[in-house]
Amino acid sequence: MSETNKDIAVAFYKAVTEGRVEDAFLLYAGTPYLQHNPLIEDGMEGLRKIVTWLTDARCEIKRVFADGDHVILHSHWHGLSDNPRGEAVVDIFRLEGGKVVEHWDVIQPIPETSANINTMF
Amino acid sequence: MSETNKDIAVAFYKAVTEGRVEDAFLLYAGTPYLQHNPLIEDGMEGLRKIVTWLTDARCEIKRVFADGDHVILHSHWHGLSDNPRGEAVVDIFRLEGGKVVEHWDVIQPIPETSANINTMF
Repeated sequence: MSETNKDIAVAFYKAVTEGRVEDAFLLYAGTPYLQHNPLIEDGMEGLRKIVTWLTDARCEIKRVFADGDHVILHSHWHGLSDNPRGEAVVDIFRLEGGKVVEHWDVIQPIPETSANINTMF
Repeated sequence: MSETNKDIAVAFYKAVTEGRVEDAFLLYAGTPYLQHNPLIEDGMEGLRKIVTWLTDARCEIKRVFADGDHVILHSHWHGLSDNPRGEAVVDIFRLEGGKVVEHWDVIQPIPETSANINTMF
Protein backbone atom coordinates (compact mmCIF):
# COMPACT_ATOMS: atom_id res chain seq x y z
CA MET A 1 0.00 0.00 0.00
CA SER A 2 2.78 2.40 0.90
CA GLU A 3 4.42 2.19 -2.52
CA THR A 4 1.10 2.75 -4.29
CA ASN A 5 0.37 5.66 -1.96
CA LYS A 6 3.74 7.16 -2.87
CA ASP A 7 2.84 7.04 -6.55
CA ILE A 8 -0.58 8.59 -5.92
CA ALA A 9 0.73 11.38 -3.69
CA VAL A 10 3.56 12.25 -6.08
CA ALA A 11 1.16 12.27 -9.06
CA PHE A 12 -1.19 14.55 -7.10
CA TYR A 13 1.68 16.84 -6.08
CA LYS A 14 3.00 17.12 -9.63
CA ALA A 15 -0.44 17.78 -11.09
CA VAL A 16 -1.13 20.56 -8.56
CA THR A 17 2.30 22.14 -8.94
CA GLU A 18 1.87 22.09 -12.73
CA GLY A 19 -1.43 23.94 -12.34
CA ARG A 20 -3.73 21.00 -13.15
CA VAL A 21 -5.71 21.34 -9.92
CA GLU A 22 -9.02 19.99 -11.26
CA ASP A 23 -7.33 16.95 -12.79
CA ALA A 24 -5.40 16.42 -9.58
CA PHE A 25 -8.59 16.28 -7.52
CA LEU A 26 -10.54 14.27 -10.08
CA LEU A 27 -7.85 11.60 -10.27
CA TYR A 28 -6.14 11.55 -6.90
CA ALA A 29 -7.98 13.40 -4.09
CA GLY A 30 -10.95 12.74 -1.86
CA THR A 31 -13.56 14.85 -0.17
CA PRO A 32 -13.20 16.54 2.21
CA TYR A 33 -9.61 17.58 1.60
CA LEU A 34 -8.25 19.03 4.82
CA GLN A 35 -5.59 21.70 4.37
CA HIS A 36 -3.11 22.58 7.15
CA ASN A 37 -0.95 25.07 5.21
CA PRO A 38 -2.00 28.32 6.89
CA LEU A 39 -2.03 30.23 3.58
CA ILE A 40 -4.48 27.89 1.85
CA GLU A 41 -8.18 27.18 2.34
CA ASP A 42 -9.53 23.64 2.51
CA GLY A 43 -10.37 21.63 -0.59
CA MET A 44 -9.83 22.09 -4.30
CA GLU A 45 -10.91 25.72 -4.24
CA GLY A 46 -8.17 26.54 -1.74
CA LEU A 47 -5.52 25.22 -4.12
CA ARG A 48 -7.13 26.87 -7.16
CA LYS A 49 -6.84 30.25 -5.46
CA ILE A 50 -3.06 29.94 -4.89
CA VAL A 51 -2.08 27.82 -7.87
CA THR A 52 -0.25 30.59 -9.72
CA TRP A 53 2.00 30.86 -6.66
CA LEU A 54 3.00 27.24 -7.36
CA THR A 55 3.12 27.32 -11.16
CA ASP A 56 5.36 30.39 -11.09
CA ALA A 57 7.79 28.38 -8.96
CA ARG A 58 9.62 25.11 -9.57
CA CYS A 59 10.14 22.11 -7.39
CA GLU A 60 12.67 19.29 -7.17
CA ILE A 61 11.48 16.35 -5.08
CA LYS A 62 14.51 15.01 -3.21
CA ARG A 63 13.00 12.17 -1.15
CA VAL A 64 9.67 10.37 -0.88
CA PHE A 65 8.75 8.29 2.16
CA ALA A 66 5.58 6.40 3.03
CA ASP A 67 4.30 4.85 6.23
CA GLY A 68 0.89 3.23 5.97
CA ASP A 69 -1.60 5.87 4.85
CA HIS A 70 0.87 8.78 5.02
CA VAL A 71 3.33 9.95 2.35
CA ILE A 72 6.10 12.43 3.06
CA LEU A 73 7.94 14.50 0.40
CA HIS A 74 11.17 16.42 1.02
CA SER A 75 11.66 19.01 -1.72
CA HIS A 76 13.73 21.97 -2.85
CA TRP A 77 11.59 24.81 -4.19
CA HIS A 78 12.66 27.91 -6.08
CA GLY A 79 10.37 30.84 -6.76
CA LEU A 80 7.95 30.59 -3.82
CA SER A 81 9.66 33.77 -2.56
CA ASP A 82 12.41 36.15 -3.66
CA ASN A 83 15.01 34.04 -1.85
CA PRO A 84 17.55 33.11 -4.56
CA ARG A 85 18.46 29.94 -2.64
CA GLY A 86 14.85 28.84 -2.46
CA GLU A 87 13.08 26.93 0.27
CA ALA A 88 13.36 23.54 1.91
CA VAL A 89 9.88 22.01 2.11
CA VAL A 90 8.40 18.91 3.69
CA ASP A 91 4.87 17.95 2.64
CA ILE A 92 2.90 15.28 4.48
CA PHE A 93 -0.15 13.73 2.82
CA ARG A 94 -2.73 11.39 4.38
CA LEU A 95 -4.58 9.04 2.06
CA GLU A 96 -7.81 7.13 2.50
CA GLY A 97 -8.66 4.38 0.03
CA GLY A 98 -6.05 5.56 -2.44
CA LYS A 99 -7.17 9.20 -2.38
CA VAL A 100 -5.33 12.15 -0.84
CA VAL A 101 -7.54 13.66 1.89
CA GLU A 102 -5.26 15.74 4.13
CA HIS A 103 -2.12 17.85 3.74
CA TRP A 104 0.41 19.42 6.10
CA ASP A 105 3.63 21.21 5.17
CA VAL A 106 6.60 22.99 6.69
CA ILE A 107 8.53 25.56 4.62
CA GLN A 108 11.89 27.15 5.47
CA PRO A 109 13.88 29.66 3.44
CA ILE A 110 17.41 28.36 2.84
CA PRO A 111 19.88 30.66 4.61
CA GLU A 112 22.91 32.18 2.90
CA THR A 113 25.44 30.54 5.19
CA SER A 114 25.64 27.20 6.93
CA ALA A 115 27.57 25.68 9.83
CA ASN A 116 28.11 22.54 7.72
CA ILE A 117 28.86 21.70 4.09
CA ASN A 118 26.00 19.23 3.61
CA THR A 119 23.28 21.55 2.26
CA MET A 120 19.72 21.32 3.61
CA PHE A 121 19.18 18.22 1.41
CA MET B 1 12.97 -2.59 11.14
CA SER B 2 10.91 0.56 10.67
CA GLU B 3 9.20 0.26 14.06
CA THR B 4 12.51 -0.32 15.82
CA ASN B 5 14.01 2.61 13.96
CA LYS B 6 11.13 4.82 15.16
CA ASP B 7 11.90 3.89 18.77
CA ILE B 8 15.61 4.57 18.30
CA ALA B 9 15.12 7.91 16.54
CA VAL B 10 12.55 9.12 19.10
CA ALA B 11 14.80 8.07 21.99
CA PHE B 12 17.71 9.93 20.35
CA TYR B 13 15.55 13.02 19.75
CA LYS B 14 14.28 13.08 23.33
CA ALA B 15 17.74 12.61 24.81
CA VAL B 16 19.18 15.46 22.71
CA THR B 17 16.27 17.81 23.39
CA GLU B 18 16.60 17.09 27.12
CA GLY B 19 20.27 18.06 26.96
CA ARG B 20 21.72 14.54 27.26
CA VAL B 21 23.78 14.83 24.08
CA GLU B 22 26.59 12.49 25.12
CA ASP B 23 24.15 9.78 26.21
CA ALA B 24 22.21 10.26 23.00
CA PHE B 25 25.30 9.62 20.89
CA LEU B 26 26.62 6.81 23.08
CA LEU B 27 23.33 4.92 22.91
CA TYR B 28 21.73 5.82 19.59
CA ALA B 29 24.02 7.54 17.08
CA GLY B 30 26.76 6.47 14.72
CA THR B 31 29.86 8.05 13.29
CA PRO B 32 30.03 10.13 11.21
CA TYR B 33 26.81 11.97 12.05
CA LEU B 34 25.92 14.21 9.11
CA GLN B 35 24.03 17.35 10.00
CA HIS B 36 21.91 19.26 7.45
CA ASN B 37 20.43 21.90 9.79
CA PRO B 38 22.33 24.99 8.60
CA LEU B 39 22.79 26.30 12.16
CA ILE B 40 24.51 23.17 13.47
CA GLU B 41 27.92 21.61 12.80
CA ASP B 42 28.32 17.91 12.07
CA GLY B 43 28.53 15.32 14.80
CA MET B 44 28.05 15.33 18.57
CA GLU B 45 30.05 18.53 19.01
CA GLY B 46 27.67 20.39 16.75
CA LEU B 47 24.71 19.46 18.94
CA ARG B 48 26.63 20.15 22.17
CA LYS B 49 27.25 23.72 20.98
CA ILE B 50 23.55 24.46 20.46
CA VAL B 51 22.00 22.26 23.11
CA THR B 52 20.89 25.10 25.39
CA TRP B 53 18.83 26.39 22.45
CA LEU B 54 16.93 23.09 22.61
CA THR B 55 16.76 22.63 26.39
CA ASP B 56 15.38 26.15 26.83
CA ALA B 57 12.57 25.17 24.46
CA ARG B 58 9.93 22.43 24.61
CA CYS B 59 8.72 20.03 21.99
CA GLU B 60 5.56 18.03 21.44
CA ILE B 61 5.98 15.22 18.90
CA LYS B 62 2.75 15.00 16.91
CA ARG B 63 3.50 12.22 14.43
CA VAL B 64 6.26 9.68 13.80
CA PHE B 65 6.68 7.92 10.47
CA ALA B 66 9.26 5.43 9.25
CA ASP B 67 10.17 4.10 5.83
CA GLY B 68 13.05 1.65 5.76
CA ASP B 69 16.10 3.33 7.23
CA HIS B 70 14.47 6.78 7.55
CA VAL B 71 12.35 8.13 10.41
CA ILE B 72 10.32 11.33 10.14
CA LEU B 73 9.03 13.37 13.11
CA HIS B 74 6.41 16.13 12.87
CA SER B 75 6.55 18.30 15.98
CA HIS B 76 5.31 21.50 17.58
CA TRP B 77 8.08 23.45 19.29
CA HIS B 78 7.81 26.40 21.64
CA GLY B 79 10.76 28.53 22.72
CA LEU B 80 13.08 28.10 19.74
CA SER B 81 12.27 31.74 19.00
CA ASP B 82 10.23 34.57 20.50
CA ASN B 83 7.20 33.48 18.45
CA PRO B 84 4.44 32.86 21.03
CA ARG B 85 2.79 30.37 18.69
CA GLY B 86 5.99 28.40 18.27
CA GLU B 87 7.26 26.54 15.25
CA ALA B 88 6.15 23.62 13.10
CA VAL B 89 9.12 21.29 12.60
CA VAL B 90 9.79 18.20 10.55
CA ASP B 91 12.93 16.20 11.37
CA ILE B 92 14.18 13.43 9.11
CA PHE B 93 16.68 10.90 10.45
CA ARG B 94 18.61 8.26 8.52
CA LEU B 95 19.74 5.18 10.41
CA GLU B 96 22.40 2.59 9.61
CA GLY B 97 22.46 -0.63 11.62
CA GLY B 98 20.18 0.80 14.29
CA LYS B 99 22.19 4.00 14.76
CA VAL B 100 21.21 7.52 13.72
CA VAL B 101 23.79 8.80 11.22
CA GLU B 102 22.17 11.72 9.36
CA HIS B 103 19.68 14.49 10.12
CA TRP B 104 17.67 16.99 8.10
CA ASP B 105 15.03 19.39 9.34
CA VAL B 106 12.64 22.08 8.18
CA ILE B 107 11.41 24.72 10.64
CA GLN B 108 8.58 27.23 10.10
CA PRO B 109 7.26 29.84 12.54
CA ILE B 110 3.51 29.41 13.00
CA PRO B 111 1.75 32.53 11.66
CA GLU B 112 -0.82 34.48 13.63
CA THR B 113 -3.64 33.89 11.17
CA SER B 114 -4.67 31.03 8.93
CA ALA B 115 -6.87 30.52 5.89
CA ASN B 116 -8.25 27.35 7.50
CA ILE B 117 -9.26 26.20 11.00
CA ASN B 118 -7.13 23.03 11.02
CA THR B 119 -3.93 24.33 12.68
CA MET B 120 -0.52 23.39 11.22
CA PHE B 121 -0.85 19.97 12.92
